[in-house]
Amino acid sequence: MKVIIEKLQSRGHQVTVVRTNDSWYIQETSPLYTSITLEVDSGFSKDFITSFVDHLLSIHREGNAAWTRFKLKMEQGQKASLLHEKTAKLLQSMFEKKNLVESLLRAKYDLVLTDPAVPGGVILAGYLKLPVVFNVRWTSHGEGHFAIAPSPLSYVPMTGTEFSDKMSFFQRVLNVLAFVFENYQIANYITPHYRGLINKYLGPDVNYYSLFQKADLWLMRVDFVFEFPRPTMPNVIYIGGFQCQPAKPLPDHLEEFMQSSEKHGVILMSLGTFVSELSADVADKIAAAFAKLPQKVIWRYKGAKPSTLGNNTLLVDWMPQNDLLGHPKMKLFVAHGGTNGVQEAMYHGVPVVGIPLFFDQYDNLKRLTDRGAAIIVQLTSVEKDNNFLEALQEVLTNSSYRTNMQRLSRLHRDQPIAPLDNAIFWIEFVMRHKGAAHLRTESYKIPWYAYYSVDVVFFLAAVVLSNLVSLSAFIYCLCSRVCLKTKHKRD
Amino acid sequence: MKVIIEKLQSRGHQVTVVRTNDSWYIQETSPLYTSITLEVDSGFSKDFITSFVDHLLSIHREGNAAWTRFKLKMEQGQKASLLHEKTAKLLQSMFEKKNLVESLLRAKYDLVLTDPAVPGGVILAGYLKLPVVFNVRWTSHGEGHFAIAPSPLSYVPMTGTEFSDKMSFFQRVLNVLAFVFENYQIANYITPHYRGLINKYLGPDVNYYSLFQKADLWLMRVDFVFEFPRPTMPNVIYIGGFQCQPAKPLPDHLEEFMQSSEKHGVILMSLGTFVSELSADVADKIAAAFAKLPQKVIWRYKGAKPSTLGNNTLLVDWMPQNDLLGHPKMKLFVAHGGTNGVQEAMYHGVPVVGIPLFFDQYDNLKRLTDRGAAIIVQLTSVEKDNNFLEALQEVLTNSSYRTNMQRLSRLHRDQPIAPLDNAIFWIEFVMRHKGAAHLRTESYKIPWYAYYSVDVVFFLAAVVLSNLVSLSAFIYCLCSRVCLKTKHKRD
Repeated sequence: MKVIIEKLQSRGHQVTVVRTNDSWYIQETSPLYTSITLEVDSGFSKDFITSFVDHLLSIHREGNAAWTRFKLKMEQGQKASLLHEKTAKLLQSMFEKKNLVESLLRAKYDLVLTDPAVPGGVILAGYLKLPVVFNVRWTSHGEGHFAIAPSPLSYVPMTGTEFSDKMSFFQRVLNVLAFVFENYQIANYITPHYRGLINKYLGPDVNYYSLFQKADLWLMRVDFVFEFPRPTMPNVIYIGGFQCQPAKPLPDHLEEFMQSSEKHGVILMSLGTFVSELSADVADKIAAAFAKLPQKVIWRYKGAKPSTLGNNTLLVDWMPQNDLLGHPKMKLFVAHGGTNGVQEAMYHGVPVVGIPLFFDQYDNLKRLTDRGAAIIVQLTSVEKDNNFLEALQEVLTNSSYRTNMQRLSRLHRDQPIAPLDNAIFWIEFVMRHKGAAHLRTESYKIPWYAYYSVDVVFFLAAVVLSNLVSLSAFIYCLCSRVCLKTKHKRD
Repeated sequence: MKVIIEKLQSRGHQVTVVRTNDSWYIQETSPLYTSITLEVDSGFSKDFITSFVDHLLSIHREGNAAWTRFKLKMEQGQKASLLHEKTAKLLQSMFEKKNLVESLLRAKYDLVLTDPAVPGGVILAGYLKLPVVFNVRWTSHGEGHFAIAPSPLSYVPMTGTEFSDKMSFFQRVLNVLAFVFENYQIANYITPHYRGLINKYLGPDVNYYSLFQKADLWLMRVDFVFEFPRPTMPNVIYIGGFQCQPAKPLPDHLEEFMQSSEKHGVILMSLGTFVSELSADVADKIAAAFAKLPQKVIWRYKGAKPSTLGNNTLLVDWMPQNDLLGHPKMKLFVAHGGTNGVQEAMYHGVPVVGIPLFFDQYDNLKRLTDRGAAIIVQLTSVEKDNNFLEALQEVLTNSSYRTNMQRLSRLHRDQPIAPLDNAIFWIEFVMRHKGAAHLRTESYKIPWYAYYSVDVVFFLAAVVLSNLVSLSAFIYCLCSRVCLKTKHKRD
């Protein structure tokens, strides 16, 4: 979001950010935006997220079986329930602040730009009656596409299933079950929290889903070099990789480190913002694997120094990830599979060894392994066997991974308009035209049985059937008459 | 197609056009392309088309009832059958010319650019194993979208039904019936002609439909200012209005004529390339209506001068349509509703009175009337009552038509990249990357029952049912045992 706000601000737009006082990544003051701070417990404090991630990690380490994954999904669902309960309360307290709401109404904003993973923005936009532009990978009710575009379960895999767009019969069965399960979770853990709020502030006939479906634009943070081809809608704009840029020069100490790798090159490892520490035994295993390689390694890691750490490995707190990935000495990216990191690796053509932890990370990495540009190693097998070292060596020595990733990079970069410019164009389009209603289907207003033509099929079946019955009855009558007459004659 | 070829040639590409010797609009020699001429009866001679159109017109004039329209559809289907039979023969004779085919193979073309309304190009591409780019509004089996994108019949109207994306229950029933009818026509009038040919030259496992579905790109000649919003696919690029340009200065005599209209402005009338003559009584009615208006009229008409022609009306053989529509004095376009003309009117913001005749013309005009930018007058009512004059007067005096069309024009022109540039970008993309496989779903290879998850639903139903049966049996056994025991005890 910051990348988009920076660009909007540089083009002279004024941005107001609504944040909570416990937000740990949206600052109150910034040259980029004016902020409105809500004094509430949002549920999204840094401590909460870190402890939640630790908890998920601990479940993860119990093993790799289907049961563990199911348990992970259930835990995520229940935690989501808690977060949504707090979000609903947050919105409630916001709407109760008459002065705040009136000042928001008076400000006459052009649009609301929001990530629908948490529905605060879209509900606020509904209340203020403003056009909505989503910056989206997920909605609170699943993958963004599922909310807006037809998604045949036969070739559109549910997130978390770890399937590709080519599924076996058994995988298709599981995909349908995953769909049913997700809808069960949504109906139990998410929508109930907002029902009262929506009824009270948006009107009794407003439906939770329709708030999303009537958004003007969906800026989707994927592209079809990464995502499997699937149906889409006219108001979905693909901006995958919008945050990627050509590498800038590195700070001196990092540039020296890169050059010291000589012909072997460098490996970069980061498991994202949330996972800064691993248990000592996992960290030791990883460090030991790195120590056996001739490459140099930059590892973003905040925990205690692993006992097995080699001379070739540099631990860092923070690093310019994009610039490192774009460095010519960069050979391999060890990543958890978050969307941003994966898109950056793709942009710079760096092959990946992925250690997926939760949410969509396995699914993201699956999109790379399917194209021969990555290998996935499960966290449990990092701990137990030599899989991690073998995966590193395979990607470093077999050139096909690099070749494939560079092919993806070429395809990704070959677009008529850069993703970020496209995003800004369409945001400004909505501002110029006060929405984008002509790009948005209103089919979401049709009841499901009509949408799927179930009523028509029943009607046609009834017509055919009643015709058949009438015909049979007619023939029966005719026969009876004829029989009767014959009988009379005989009599 | 000529617009695209011109642009390709100007960018240094070499284009070879395959034509038949009886083609009446593709010249053998041109500075734009090299041509290969097939000496065959293509069935598409000018005489044939003119007489076919005259025949359709005569049916049209029988009345406006549902039965007439159905008859028109049947006639079009049967005539299509004849054309496809000839196309199949044409391809057959082409493939038999060993020298020609070998020279085509040797030439190593980058791709085949073709309109799939007639499947010659796509079958040739299949034979030469070349990437395919469609320049498309229709496929031989219906509207282009239906071949490539999910098209829920509840809100995607079949062409020819004249429905919008908001249908009543009864309209939805008719839409489903239209779908069934069209598929009946395709199965009877089109696909049988190509079966033998495809089997022989492309292999026994190649399916007629899959030839279309595996095309790399679909350059669709509509946009979503014109088309109702509907699902689409990643390899569909919208180039509607690609042929439109800002108006160039008019020849002196036309400019003088335009200026002589003073404050009243000018009406332009053209019923397209195919209809150059109308019956004398219709022409008289139209001319009489024009004569009653203060505006000047430019009418593209090749028939005998109508007896009622007013002083304000100029009959012309040919005219620079785009430049006239873009002239500031232009007030109204009387059109048949062909896609090109409608898109040009939209580009220049000129409201329309439409006289639809056949094919998609009513559906095209419907997309304008739905947005309040046009009025439709049926040919039969032009003949019989004053509807035509009233429609002209309504559009000329009620400013909402012009306002609405100019809104459409603004939306249409507000794109991040001009449609023609976009078309060329993607054609060259396919050349650079030898196809666009990553944008194309392979879901068309799934059998229909798997695509729609019918097998999965039956499987899950069977599992549930067998569990229920087992459970009942178990309970029954248990009960029997208990009963028996109780009985034994009692005994």
